[in-house]
Amino acid sequence: MRIALDAMGSDRGPAEMVAGAAMAVREADVKITIVGGEEQIRPALKREGIEGLVEFVPTSQVVTMHDSPIDAVRKKKDSSIVVAFELLKKNAVDAVVSPGNSGAVMAAAVKFLGRLKDIARPGIASVFPTLKGPVVVMDVGANVDCRPKHLLQFGVMASAFSRIMFNIEKPRVGLLSIGEEGGKGNALVKGAHLLFQNSGLNYIGNVEGRDTFVGDVDVIVCDGFVGNVCLKLSEGLAEAVFSMLREEIGKTLKAKLGYILAKDAFANFKRRVDYAEYGGAPLLGFNGTGVICHGRSNKLAIKNAILVADGLVKHNVNEHILEILENAKPALADLEDNHIPAGVA
Amino acid sequence: MRIALDAMGSDRGPAEMVAGAAMAVREADVKITIVGGEEQIRPALKREGIEGLVEFVPTSQVVTMHDSPIDAVRKKKDSSIVVAFELLKKNAVDAVVSPGNSGAVMAAAVKFLGRLKDIARPGIASVFPTLKGPVVVMDVGANVDCRPKHLLQFGVMASAFSRIMFNIEKPRVGLLSIGEEGGKGNALVKGAHLLFQNSGLNYIGNVEGRDTFVGDVDVIVCDGFVGNVCLKLSEGLAEAVFSMLREEIGKTLKAKLGYILAKDAFANFKRRVDYAEYGGAPLLGFNGTGVICHGRSNKLAIKNAILVADGLVKHNVNEHILEILENAKPALADLEDNHIPAGVA
Repeated sequence: MRIALDAMGSDRGPAEMVAGAAMAVREADVKITIVGGEEQIRPALKREGIEGLVEFVPTSQVVTMHDSPIDAVRKKKDSSIVVAFELLKKNAVDAVVSPGNSGAVMAAAVKFLGRLKDIARPGIASVFPTLKGPVVVMDVGANVDCRPKHLLQFGVMASAFSRIMFNIEKPRVGLLSIGEEGGKGNALVKGAHLLFQNSGLNYIGNVEGRDTFVGDVDVIVCDGFVGNVCLKLSEGLAEAVFSMLREEIGKTLKAKLGYILAKDAFANFKRRVDYAEYGGAPLLGFNGTGVICHGRSNKLAIKNAILVADGLVKHNVNEHILEILENAKPALADLEDNHIPAGVA
Repeated sequence: MRIALDAMGSDRGPAEMVAGAAMAVREADVKITIVGGEEQIRPALKREGIEGLVEFVPTSQVVTMHDSPIDAVRKKKDSSIVVAFELLKKNAVDAVVSPGNSGAVMAAAVKFLGRLKDIARPGIASVFPTLKGPVVVMDVGANVDCRPKHLLQFGVMASAFSRIMFNIEKPRVGLLSIGEEGGKGNALVKGAHLLFQNSGLNYIGNVEGRDTFVGDVDVIVCDGFVGNVCLKLSEGLAEAVFSMLREEIGKTLKAKLGYILAKDAFANFKRRVDYAEYGGAPLLGFNGTGVICHGRSNKLAIKNAILVADGLVKHNVNEHILEILENAKPALADLEDNHIPAGVA
């Protein structure tokens, strides 16, 4: 398996990305092509002792978080994101992993590889930890204004991902809404509910925000605006909870002592909610394989993202998507037949 | 101050509501009229020893969580929700507090009292704890499909509430979105951003889900679908965090001992994130005062909700809303002048 790692555009800098690559090549049977600025990458490769173990493609430009995705892909032709996807296009690698501007990653994927047949909108899936197994949430930011058919396709793509990564043949799919009854929600969700019922997916109906972390559903579908808000809200809340707990524990000597005794429990707990364990968010719906990492990714997160990319290619996620989509087509065809107005469908 | 307490429709039953009323009358200078089923309320009044301290209006019907709000208000004329708002209409009380079906509470408020002048859509505000002070989020569920002008009015109403409850003359208002730049978000948020800039509110721009719990903003505005998802997601995550922590701590004797030593810190922490401390969500934008409590409200939450209702009436929240709305009118007038298409504005 050959994976291009975009080593630029992360908050922690290229050295941390190279360290992640080093972990991955030592742990798994993957070939990595690191893409990024020569000055930063060369010394990091040396430090990690992987100069002979990975390929390196130097680039001169960086897409920042403030760049407009479309402009960046058009104008920064020698950026690590663009060059990584060009490598994918000419089949020099099998997948791209990037911690950079997710809009630009998406734009590059679609520009160079094209959308998967019959997928209207590629999207980003993210894995949330729960009390039981992990849950896949899609879309988490690529598509902010959606129609019901887009939500149905997110359900299809996320089901394929869940099947591959968590070995669930028929993942339970829920629509994120504000009440459990199918009639509840906004116009988008109400429209999507009708489609999902007839989709061949293992659709269990609406789920509420409260259900997200319980773990009784494998896939949660929402538009990219709601998904992105939920993702960042969860991160923010988890951080706030740790801060408050630390503050309270710091107030008395007795509590501090208690914390020292319970330290391993806290560490285990932190590991359970740590995004780094889940290894990035797959970009689904284009003719290729890509994984987007959190901008703050540490080397563990990068290593895990590389392993996720490896799994997606090995199990051919796009074939699973097309297979599941085939079963959902009658629902989508009904939609066209019924001439549901554009604002609703 | 005279407050009607709808004692039906909560998860914990009428006795807990009566216990909350007992706490309130003993702590503050409020007159309470309890509305609900005679068989359950009478013995509870006796048990709490407040038979002579509160009024009681018996009702024979209960609006459940599964009732359609509009139907319930029309057909269940002797339900506690309907009767409580009738008391408000004929000025027998100054405010209503209810833990019942929030849609039905909203419908009854609008039916019996009417919308506040120039407010297109009344909504529900909720208080979230943060690392610093509390933050007011609106709307959290009353309006699932919104236009930009509705968001602006939520900003106006939530600012009035923040001013009164937290004594902030010019609350900082943020629009919940998926990027900090004003150009980022879905069509609704982009449209609202333009209105807020010219609204006279202390508008600080977009805020992300991550900012919610940091406490650098006083009011967060979103549509009722997003707000309700966020509210329930936060509850679910907080519960999951406690469960995971409990599980991990239960695994070793050493950790258990540590927990015992740090117990006070945990209790303080729990209090900081406990919804019961914040006392319910005000219903804003109708000609009256109402507070909706969480269905799971315990007596402390009910007591605090009664105190919130008391504060809203005392400080005349509706006058503040109208005053702040006056300053926002040019922004809304621009909107009409520009003939922004209905789908966007």
